[in-house]
Amino acid sequence: MAEIHLDDLAPGQIHHLGRRTLGRDEIVAFARDWDPQPFHLDEAAASASIYGGLIASGWHTVCVFMRLFVDGLLGRAAALGSPGIDELRWLKPVRPGDTLEARLEVLEVRPSRSKPDRGIVRLRSVMVNQDHEEVLSFVGNVMFRRRETRAD
Amino acid sequence: MAEIHLDDLAPGQIHHLGRRTLGRDEIVAFARDWDPQPFHLDEAAASASIYGGLIASGWHTVCVFMRLFVDGLLGRAAALGSPGIDELRWLKPVRPGDTLEARLEVLEVRPSRSKPDRGIVRLRSVMVNQDHEEVLSFVGNVMFRRRETRAD
Repeated sequence: MAEIHLDDLAPGQIHHLGRRTLGRDEIVAFARDWDPQPFHLDEAAASASIYGGLIASGWHTVCVFMRLFVDGLLGRAAALGSPGIDELRWLKPVRPGDTLEARLEVLEVRPSRSKPDRGIVRLRSVMVNQDHEEVLSFVGNVMFRRRETRAD
Repeated sequence: MAEIHLDDLAPGQIHHLGRRTLGRDEIVAFARDWDPQPFHLDEAAASASIYGGLIASGWHTVCVFMRLFVDGLLGRAAALGSPGIDELRWLKPVRPGDTLEARLEVLEVRPSRSKPDRGIVRLRSVMVNQDHEEVLSFVGNVMFRRRETRAD
């Protein structure tokens, strides 16, 4: 049974979602599948690039955030998917060995007018590295069910 | 040698990036790694959900777009990465067996004032399914190098 419903979320809440360290092999494997650009794949090419060394695909960083979000909150929530996100920024390169820590800030909770069993929550998603620098930020919209109320 | 530089891109251009069919096993494997929500993992749970059946993670759809983008254009371009994206929308669910076709529209080409060797290109990224329905849309910013000019 889901513990977290729309009714449990309120603007200003901060949810800490845990952390994960990205190794070199994982960075290269992800890039090989989804984003095979030289600065994600090959140390020599990456060293000669504007990044000065291997960096993770921005989509890899986003996927790591998503997994931490599911493990840290969505997996216990009555969540119904997302219509989209806004203002996604890759603020700093992510390099092999970086430890990324994810957190969510609830910006807005909007019950649906047409569907009283659900609503949309607007969330700021942030990932910081071990030096407390933000590496990723975006604003996401996620649908959640409302808690059922009994009509006794 | 890269064929495509900032100078080769102009507002209004449409670039067709090819297509890819998503199988059930690939959808489940991606979700297991990055987005393990029931409607991406399990047919029975997905059938009981608001989606009425298994759907791909929205991040999977984005990753498929990215791979088509690299194979269809970036791999031949002097591209330097991306500072971010805006207005990402998952417009329709993607289901097992769907064939997705990616295209890019160049919206704006902005040479850098501070770094004359590069600039930012604003691109609308779209993916449609086999019924010509848009399933994904976002506006991305990508840095490209300018073509070198000889100072003879």
